Amino acid sequence: MKPTILISNDDSIFSKGIKAMVEVARQFGKVVVVAPDKPQSAKSHAITLNNVISYRKTDIFGTEVDTYACSGTPADCIKLALNKILDKKPNLILSGINHGANSSVNLIYSGTIAAAVEGALHNIPSIAFSLTTHDENFDLEPAKKYSTEIIAKILETTPKDSLCLNVNIPNVAASAIKGLKICKQTKGAWFEAFDSVKHQHADNPFFLLNGKFINFEPNKEDTDIWALENNYVAIVPIKIDFTDYEMLDKLNF
Amino acid sequence: MKPTILISNDDSIFSKGIKAMVEVARQFGKVVVVAPDKPQSAKSHAITLNNVISYRKTDIFGTEVDTYACSGTPADCIKLALNKILDKKPNLILSGINHGANSSVNLIYSGTIAAAVEGALHNIPSIAFSLTTHDENFDLEPAKKYSTEIIAKILETTPKDSLCLNVNIPNVAASAIKGLKICKQTKGAWFEAFDSVKHQHADNPFFLLNGKFINFEPNKEDTDIWALENNYVAIVPIKIDFTDYEMLDKLNF
Repeated sequence: MKPTILISNDDSIFSKGIKAMVEVARQFGKVVVVAPDKPQSAKSHAITLNNVISYRKTDIFGTEVDTYACSGTPADCIKLALNKILDKKPNLILSGINHGANSSVNLIYSGTIAAAVEGALHNIPSIAFSLTTHDENFDLEPAKKYSTEIIAKILETTPKDSLCLNVNIPNVAASAIKGLKICKQTKGAWFEAFDSVKHQHADNPFFLLNGKFINFEPNKEDTDIWALENNYVAIVPIKIDFTDYEMLDKLNF
Repeated sequence: MKPTILISNDDSIFSKGIKAMVEVARQFGKVVVVAPDKPQSAKSHAITLNNVISYRKTDIFGTEVDTYACSGTPADCIKLALNKILDKKPNLILSGINHGANSSVNLIYSGTIAAAVEGALHNIPSIAFSLTTHDENFDLEPAKKYSTEIIAKILETTPKDSLCLNVNIPNVAASAIKGLKICKQTKGAWFEAFDSVKHQHADNPFFLLNGKFINFEPNKEDTDIWALENNYVAIVPIKIDFTDYEMLDKLNF
């Protein structure tokens, strides 16, 4: 029987990336899309408490793809899809294709990653795909080619229920990509440089977040940023365990 | 020289928990509060992109505590405090005291945890404190007693820059608490049971998120939930590395 594939993202149902993700997934089985009805980038794993959410059906991807635009966050979309929209557990969840890299620490800010993680928490194999550019008009063909390859590989095995992959695809032509590389999450962080702007009726300025990413381990060949800089598709298997095991023995209480 | 302690949370600057946190921190040094001007629970590590944020000074905690109510998320508060409000790096960041447990997987949904994690990403020792009850009128004295003990211990050493602790305090009298316990994050997840309600002018119902937490490893004595159920204060050292190291060798690409 053909697999059922649930798709979400954080750039909203109107992004080019999710359209490409739908085209890729349709090669493999029945596709159901439950994605935000507006951009939800950098919403991380936020969920809607103390308020209601809703969805509406749309034929934006044609009549053969069950598509729902949801008023909530990416994590809300997955929860609502699994509990109220799908009549059975999907075989696979795909999130993306995201416009912008989710390598290194970016993954804690990303709604696209959250949708995949929420799937894995529900014991459904889940994959997040991201492009390393925010350019809306970037060539999606390399991402489509390599996401097809990865999905085929996952579906031909019986993946672990909690399998969760963070896949980033470099911003180069398909012919320049050297292949797939299993990596670790690069250690790094963003440091801020807010821009400020004054409004005539406000005492305090308003701030717009800008920042600079610092790679704490440049040139480390087993990291996802190294892989991307060297034209590999970076695949990081992820899980939700924040425990700092090395610190467990060092804390003295 | 007395340390500078930055405080934030996700329940907002008007919560009882942050007031208790300020009282605790004032025993140790200069306190600066930068916290959300409205509830931001379950906002996870969301940050404000494509929009501005602002802050205003308030004397809600008296004139000796520099206090700023910020329009952003908990992670925004930390970023803005470090980049635009404080003139030097604080010695310690405290987040909380949160109303509601942040044990097990709750930490990925929590804005209180995000504030502490953001601090640690900026190489500042950070501690999140949470109570295992949402009851606004719960006795905060046990939390004040044990957070005082933990902060004193951390400040008397030279903590690692990236130290990040997730501390949960059980909902019992101080006399019933058996002490502090270093733990791992319990494996578990929330499963949903949305309630729905119909509006007269809408075709589709609106949904309100409810759910049930399932502990995947009950009775495991090294986990934070076991510690809380057995009246210990649970301390989990955390870090941001989502890499699933066990899967690195198992993936076959």
